[in-house]
Amino acid sequence: MKNLAVKAKTASRALAIKTASQKNIVLKQMAKLLKNNASLIQKENKKDLINAKKNQLSGAMIDRLTLSDDRIKAMADGIIQIATLKDPVGEIIEQWEQPNKMRITKQRVPIGLVGIIFESRPNVTADAAALCLKSGNGCILRGGKEAFYSNSVIVKILQSALKDKTFDPNMISFVNKTDRALVKEMLRLEGIIDVIIPRGGKSLIKAVTEQSLIPVIKHYDGNCHIYVDKFADFKMALEICINAKTQRPGVCNAAETFLIHEGVAKKFLPLLGKELNAHKVEIRGCTQTKKILPKIKKASKDDWVMEYLDLIVAIKVVKDIDEAINHINNFGSGHSDCIVSKNKLAKNNFVERVDSAVVFANVSTRFNDGFEFGFGAEIGISTDRLHARGPVGLKELTTYKYVVEGNGQIKN
Amino acid sequence: MKNLAVKAKTASRALAIKTASQKNIVLKQMAKLLKNNASLIQKENKKDLINAKKNQLSGAMIDRLTLSDDRIKAMADGIIQIATLKDPVGEIIEQWEQPNKMRITKQRVPIGLVGIIFESRPNVTADAAALCLKSGNGCILRGGKEAFYSNSVIVKILQSALKDKTFDPNMISFVNKTDRALVKEMLRLEGIIDVIIPRGGKSLIKAVTEQSLIPVIKHYDGNCHIYVDKFADFKMALEICINAKTQRPGVCNAAETFLIHEGVAKKFLPLLGKELNAHKVEIRGCTQTKKILPKIKKASKDDWVMEYLDLIVAIKVVKDIDEAINHINNFGSGHSDCIVSKNKLAKNNFVERVDSAVVFANVSTRFNDGFEFGFGAEIGISTDRLHARGPVGLKELTTYKYVVEGNGQIKN
Repeated sequence: MKNLAVKAKTASRALAIKTASQKNIVLKQMAKLLKNNASLIQKENKKDLINAKKNQLSGAMIDRLTLSDDRIKAMADGIIQIATLKDPVGEIIEQWEQPNKMRITKQRVPIGLVGIIFESRPNVTADAAALCLKSGNGCILRGGKEAFYSNSVIVKILQSALKDKTFDPNMISFVNKTDRALVKEMLRLEGIIDVIIPRGGKSLIKAVTEQSLIPVIKHYDGNCHIYVDKFADFKMALEICINAKTQRPGVCNAAETFLIHEGVAKKFLPLLGKELNAHKVEIRGCTQTKKILPKIKKASKDDWVMEYLDLIVAIKVVKDIDEAINHINNFGSGHSDCIVSKNKLAKNNFVERVDSAVVFANVSTRFNDGFEFGFGAEIGISTDRLHARGPVGLKELTTYKYVVEGNGQIKN
Repeated sequence: MKNLAVKAKTASRALAIKTASQKNIVLKQMAKLLKNNASLIQKENKKDLINAKKNQLSGAMIDRLTLSDDRIKAMADGIIQIATLKDPVGEIIEQWEQPNKMRITKQRVPIGLVGIIFESRPNVTADAAALCLKSGNGCILRGGKEAFYSNSVIVKILQSALKDKTFDPNMISFVNKTDRALVKEMLRLEGIIDVIIPRGGKSLIKAVTEQSLIPVIKHYDGNCHIYVDKFADFKMALEICINAKTQRPGVCNAAETFLIHEGVAKKFLPLLGKELNAHKVEIRGCTQTKKILPKIKKASKDDWVMEYLDLIVAIKVVKDIDEAINHINNFGSGHSDCIVSKNKLAKNNFVERVDSAVVFANVSTRFNDGFEFGFGAEIGISTDRLHARGPVGLKELTTYKYVVEGNGQIKN
């Protein structure tokens, strides 16, 4: 493991100084080879699918594992899309001169070597590798054992593209054993691997964070709220609530709790209840909500912290905006939270005091997303507070260094 | 411990939205009360000093522990200086509009609750608390047991300044037991404490990193290099080498290794050797260096990774700039490294490829410092790659959030 990482680190140093056009040529070659080798990929993918059936994985798991023609094409197209994005490396973030005439430049550089630990979906392999390459980072990929054959062949194809264009293939390294002890070893290679990005369920992220000596960029859950203010436009509030809850309920930026100002609850809740019923959403409400919508389930304390990822929503009537803000800061997960209001003071108060990665005013929480932000790609949505918050795109895969130039300045 | 942290977290939320002038009033009150209570501070400090003598602490330790009149004044003046600095909170980092007309603002916000774990010097208490307050962060301070009485009284005085100005005193919290188990507990309060900053020796930082579930901003050692290029101005190279090594050898940005291009070694090393002798610096050289300076000690492999923090230097002759860059990237600690050269290509090559927090061209490494960078204050120099690299000032004690404003955008 250490040997693999050291080779990847050396390769990452060489990659860090490649130009955007050199990197883009490799990315295009990767996309081409993935398309050209679709049948080889599917042959290996079949081995994983046979094992999956043998091990009685769920239908959803098997679906995520399957590399259809369309999915292979989408993987290749994704890489071409990354090739079109602006290279963040070398960007001058700040530049100034001190009174002693030394000139300080703060400039964007790659993080170095990124360790990615992920579960079932094999397309993450190509995605993550391409994002790392474009941002000048080497990567070590450790996929789940259920996608082992698929991941292996994808990495081999990506590496052959690197070789074709005389890049060191170790830039994209792959842990080709599924032994769990290797992950533990990987997480202790501080100073060689610079950051760990786990992609998968909460238990994976938690286990990685507990064991890692290396900084981790975490993608925890989204317990997202929509607060419908006293000054909300009802039509807008209904549209945002329904969109945030039902457009794709299984993702982290979907809404899980609605908070309704008591001044509008009596009028608004019946409208909302009707729409939610029409969308087959189960409602769990507080006592006041249940008075207005008597047929719903009563919410328990657990409901305020749940990320359902399903067609279920918790609803609470709040006496004012302060209660809404406190509820979000206390029970939310700091992911994506929204106010619907026409009142400027209320909006300002909310966006200032809600302590979340992305705070929305009159916009569905579903827009917390690297593509929707215009980043062109994302490796996930960070729930951390340090380094990267919210969508993690190419820029968030970089760090900075200072270059200080002078003419012999010494310290007195 | 958890109770203390939860109270501090609540206080930090209130602090996050205070204005610069509200915070500055409190800072000035803190400085005033520290000065007014100098004799009380010294009375408590004496208890620590008596214990220190009883426990036979070294003279250097006792010196660091002692709060003289001058040091108390310096502590107060430091806080007043922090009050004059620009408040980083609320700064708009970026702002743009997406094609769907939603407006995205990336703005600077406090990190939240900062845990500071530090050793002997009690002035860190006032420094760290003031920096956190100014940047809108609550803090939990855990000082060493040898400075327990001094730290306690300083925190009490700072808290009374908070109360005077109707701020919640829990913004500055103090772990008033020196039990080690409490530190372990503190390091597991993820989601309540947002970042841990250890201030002290390598073993403290290492222990904290191993145990912490919370992200840590680390201040590891500086194995700093000066590379004297073939195209160096000898006078400048001598001045920078001597300054970086001898001006204050016990600090992390002092130089520990000189790398000399073999094309100038025969002429330059005798001059350098003479100056180093005059400054009583012990030299440990490679085989080639020893041929030119026969009286010096032979360097062992360990010398290339040592942070001497003393009047000792390792010298190696390198065959070209590539060898210098590789040596620094392999044996250095990524802290502060310098090239002395008149050649533009050499300088560009070096600053591009040396992978350190601060890379200098013709400037002494001693300038890797928050004050010298114009930050006005610093809590340390980060050797991490994520979030904060190099000097950690007020800006580095903040993070960002996105505010997305629209008029009812929903996702299709």
